[in-house]
Amino acid sequence: MSKILSATNGHKNLSTLTLNNGKPMPLVGHGLWKIPNENVADHVYNAIKAGYRLFDGACDYGNEVEAGQGVTRAIADGLVQRSDLFIVSKLWNTFHEKDRVEPICRKQLSDWGLEYFDLYIMHFPIAMKYVDPKIRYPPGWFDSGIDGTQIIQSSATIRDTWEAMESLVEKNLVKSIGTSNFNCASIMDLLRYAIVRPATLQIEYHPYLVQQALVDYAQSEGITVTAYSSFGLQGYVEMDLEHAVKTPHLFQNETVRKVAEVHGRVAVIPKSDSESMLKKNLHARSFDLTEDEIKSISALNCGLRFNDPLVYFGCLPIFA
Amino acid sequence: MSKILSATNGHKNLSTLTLNNGKPMPLVGHGLWKIPNENVADHVYNAIKAGYRLFDGACDYGNEVEAGQGVTRAIADGLVQRSDLFIVSKLWNTFHEKDRVEPICRKQLSDWGLEYFDLYIMHFPIAMKYVDPKIRYPPGWFDSGIDGTQIIQSSATIRDTWEAMESLVEKNLVKSIGTSNFNCASIMDLLRYAIVRPATLQIEYHPYLVQQALVDYAQSEGITVTAYSSFGLQGYVEMDLEHAVKTPHLFQNETVRKVAEVHGRVAVIPKSDSESMLKKNLHARSFDLTEDEIKSISALNCGLRFNDPLVYFGCLPIFA
Repeated sequence: MSKILSATNGHKNLSTLTLNNGKPMPLVGHGLWKIPNENVADHVYNAIKAGYRLFDGACDYGNEVEAGQGVTRAIADGLVQRSDLFIVSKLWNTFHEKDRVEPICRKQLSDWGLEYFDLYIMHFPIAMKYVDPKIRYPPGWFDSGIDGTQIIQSSATIRDTWEAMESLVEKNLVKSIGTSNFNCASIMDLLRYAIVRPATLQIEYHPYLVQQALVDYAQSEGITVTAYSSFGLQGYVEMDLEHAVKTPHLFQNETVRKVAEVHGRVAVIPKSDSESMLKKNLHARSFDLTEDEIKSISALNCGLRFNDPLVYFGCLPIFA
Repeated sequence: MSKILSATNGHKNLSTLTLNNGKPMPLVGHGLWKIPNENVADHVYNAIKAGYRLFDGACDYGNEVEAGQGVTRAIADGLVQRSDLFIVSKLWNTFHEKDRVEPICRKQLSDWGLEYFDLYIMHFPIAMKYVDPKIRYPPGWFDSGIDGTQIIQSSATIRDTWEAMESLVEKNLVKSIGTSNFNCASIMDLLRYAIVRPATLQIEYHPYLVQQALVDYAQSEGITVTAYSSFGLQGYVEMDLEHAVKTPHLFQNETVRKVAEVHGRVAVIPKSDSESMLKKNLHARSFDLTEDEIKSISALNCGLRFNDPLVYFGCLPIFA
């Protein structure tokens, strides 16, 4: 299912898969969510040194400038060329309106110091009121109105946004476009009108949330599924999310520990803070799981979801 | 939350609620799914006699001609006037394309012998290839192709279909339009473009499938939630659906029995075959539940869903 790219394109021994548009994507990448701004540049640089080629960023993570500095330094030092890397970014909810998509994508490219993203993802199927980057960036969930606690939706449809993202491909600002936090019904509708089909679907995916039907459906439509929070809940524990704090850590279970690293052909974006973890995560695919191991881990599934506006804010229940 | 309409409009003592377009809808209705064609006319007639005013039909139930005969006879016998009734029908998946919606709605009206439906619902958020009613009606799930076992999707978007349904309102062929089997994300997108907002959302809803976030969301958007299969699984047991056969019947539990009949402000469409059941169901709202009773029943929730293409056919996982 996956193929090893030769060293000539800089992917070295990383497994990659081929997206539905023919472009290769590393199977294991490095997530940038919640990495503190002051560490991001070094972190990205060291990760490249350790062999990472895919970095998964987003407007909402608020650290794209620093991530770009790490990339720039790695290229300047001759560690890699731009074409060796696979840089992912995401469109935030407040930029869903047709005419907001290209300007913000260009701003994000400029933050990174890049001419193109390898993959640009609609972060959530939620359109929120525009916030001018000059006023607040990243804009986050809440409008800057009177009390700054209101989530204000915009009238942009998913189709409006998708079509604007398609035009980014046409303009070579992004090589591929994808979706995140979409469910089957939303993807099904999008596939009715998409001219550029989504290359990927990025979803919360871990042993406590095995969304088999969604994964099967996406794959049957040629959409590569990328797991986030694949090691579970650490990021949400840090956010003091009650049900994350209460849930036993995945790594308390030895079998889980193995399966959480790789589950079938699903790509994984772990976040890791130490150099040894970096290397360990990168070589996640150096072993295979037996069917029984996978079954026993999948049996931990209890529909436990952490990254959910409903959980955070009591509204926008996009997973219900 | 609900109000009792006076006898003058023929709703007698039935509780009704007011839809977001100002029109009243009875809280308890009568479902026509799986009532054998030879019984439907009498069944509808007797139900009207017993006091029912809302009938919930669909192209897919294959018994709209007979249901219409029951209505016609009841009106001819002076039991009710047309304006006393609230007739619901549904658009089948194979008629989602823009130019298919009005013709099939007109055919369904003609089958019923009616000039308008009170409510016309998009049965599923699934667009399937057109089947000419002259060739097969109701068309069901499978295309009539070589082996008759293929489900073939069409390229109609939900928006295409919704806009065509909106034009039915404009033409007075239907008074209200609604959705069925939609999840939150799909409704959220639809609300971005809808000119006529959905009046209702009809979903599978019973103590084994308490979709609180979906119900809350719909209600927060002014969409009335109608429960189907509210007494659980009998219809699916009859279909020999494995997990329905295995699940204990709701009526084996006395507390369930009470709560299954009415849950909050959610309307209920039970199907009932005997005259005594007819009357019993109709007066479901003559008692109130304590909060504790509701809580104990809601605790039976286990996400058990029966009416799901994925369960039937292993594809189209619209609830995943």
